[in-house]
Amino acid sequence: MELSSIYEPIREGLAEVEKNLAATANVDSPFLARLLKHVLQNGGKRIRPALTLLAGKFYEFDLKLLVSMATAVELLHTATLVHDDTVDKSITRRGKPTVNSLWGGAKAVLLGDYLFAKAATFAASTENIRAIKVFAQTLTTISSGELHETVATFDLKRMREHYYQWIGAKTACLFVAAAESGAIVSQSPEEAISALRDYGYNLGMAFQLIDDILDFTGKEVEMGKPVGADLSQGTLTLPTILFLEHYPDDSLVRDFIGKMDMKNLKLAIERIQEPSILKECFNLASDFRNRAVKSLEKLPESSSRQALIALVDYSLQRRM
Amino acid sequence: MELSSIYEPIREGLAEVEKNLAATANVDSPFLARLLKHVLQNGGKRIRPALTLLAGKFYEFDLKLLVSMATAVELLHTATLVHDDTVDKSITRRGKPTVNSLWGGAKAVLLGDYLFAKAATFAASTENIRAIKVFAQTLTTISSGELHETVATFDLKRMREHYYQWIGAKTACLFVAAAESGAIVSQSPEEAISALRDYGYNLGMAFQLIDDILDFTGKEVEMGKPVGADLSQGTLTLPTILFLEHYPDDSLVRDFIGKMDMKNLKLAIERIQEPSILKECFNLASDFRNRAVKSLEKLPESSSRQALIALVDYSLQRRM
Repeated sequence: MELSSIYEPIREGLAEVEKNLAATANVDSPFLARLLKHVLQNGGKRIRPALTLLAGKFYEFDLKLLVSMATAVELLHTATLVHDDTVDKSITRRGKPTVNSLWGGAKAVLLGDYLFAKAATFAASTENIRAIKVFAQTLTTISSGELHETVATFDLKRMREHYYQWIGAKTACLFVAAAESGAIVSQSPEEAISALRDYGYNLGMAFQLIDDILDFTGKEVEMGKPVGADLSQGTLTLPTILFLEHYPDDSLVRDFIGKMDMKNLKLAIERIQEPSILKECFNLASDFRNRAVKSLEKLPESSSRQALIALVDYSLQRRM
Repeated sequence: MELSSIYEPIREGLAEVEKNLAATANVDSPFLARLLKHVLQNGGKRIRPALTLLAGKFYEFDLKLLVSMATAVELLHTATLVHDDTVDKSITRRGKPTVNSLWGGAKAVLLGDYLFAKAATFAASTENIRAIKVFAQTLTTISSGELHETVATFDLKRMREHYYQWIGAKTACLFVAAAESGAIVSQSPEEAISALRDYGYNLGMAFQLIDDILDFTGKEVEMGKPVGADLSQGTLTLPTILFLEHYPDDSLVRDFIGKMDMKNLKLAIERIQEPSILKECFNLASDFRNRAVKSLEKLPESSSRQALIALVDYSLQRRM
């Protein structure tokens, strides 16, 4: 199903989120306005705010509050992307130059801070203390996830576990917050909040697994970055980890990771692109998809529930 | 008066703030703990949390909530320092190496984000929506203040105005937030909140003016940075601006600023160190001090009011 069809039940709310984002970029300072437009009008899929809006529609809700929370979620996501790109010195994101590559790391740091501030402002405007606390906790998890000391990881047995923890903090926690905060703002019962947290986590994990598969299978022109970009930066994601689990003695891939000798990058990528490895990755993503769908069973049947099922299926099948 | 005497009415509260900061640094990850201890146990004067505690003591107050807000204020301040040092590529702060100089800019960006998150968590734990909104607005002001397009500034007439706006956003706004949030958390009447906002602004402005004077008059060993450090980075602060107002045709200082030719730095500093210029700067700082004291007239006579008067006098007379 197309995203536009999935988003049908929340079309009005998403349009309001876009208005909020446009208003956020509409500031007096021409330079700041230019930076904000660059990162907020970027053709993003708006999956996280959509999740907030859908999660908030199971019980009685005030659309204005939900839209504020959804806007906060998208701004928080954007802020973390701007800082991530700065930290990683990334040149492009979704095929467009990053803020740090165009205007330098210093401006990118300040822009990210500004986006955090605006996100906090929208979260506070819900006047819902619990939702605000979720928001603060999410930023704690995301920033600390990247700050744990890098452990020397050729402990193969713990590699997959570390990877799940890492993408849990990096990606899934914002999906959790998006779903949970929508449920909280609309005063859902505790059981529903908990179910939507589970859904958000499993959607986020499936989403990131597919991202990490696409890093090996996607087309450069669609992804806006070269194939194997993660591996080329020494980042070990699920396909590489499963390859190493199956072929612990493969010297080419191990050597590449150990020495980061770029002339072997292409060969290493080709080995990891083995169909059985990628199939296994996809099956693990499907497991997260199934758990996401299962967690929705506790929620009343509704157009939102159908949309959330379609959203996780979309995430599993996407090509970029 | 010594700070320890000024802080006498809030000794218990400040000790609780220190406990909160120590607890914040006490995390499982040894690397993150090390970074946090580096920036939180740094012998800072804790003026901002002291201001929150003093501002909150004029009417009925819950010490626990005030302490949470004061902790949030100090963490927000620390976060902005960590990012400022990263943006400016500063090597030392208060004579100690900066996080970015010891561990690199990437870690410093993430550490600042983590501190913002912890600050937001403490602010949210007051469960006071208005105080949380003040908190979000303050971060907006601080980050956007640095992001306005740098204007080519040899428009002498507007230089002082721009400087006041800049230090208002950079420094005074956090003093405003510290005082205002203390008053809000303790449910002070609107007139008192407004008076404490004014006090915070004027204290913050006096504080920054003295900082900028000390940049020219302080001893390197006490300041932990070389004399004229601002000027050497091309930052025009009040002493330089007053010098240019009085001697608009002085070619040495103008040329230094225009060309940043470091071999003339010492000579430029010596010119700006003219006693009449520094005296005039000090008088302007005194004007802010007087306005700060005047704003306190609307508040009931109390040990807090005496301490706030002593605090602004301390700020005016400090040597580092």
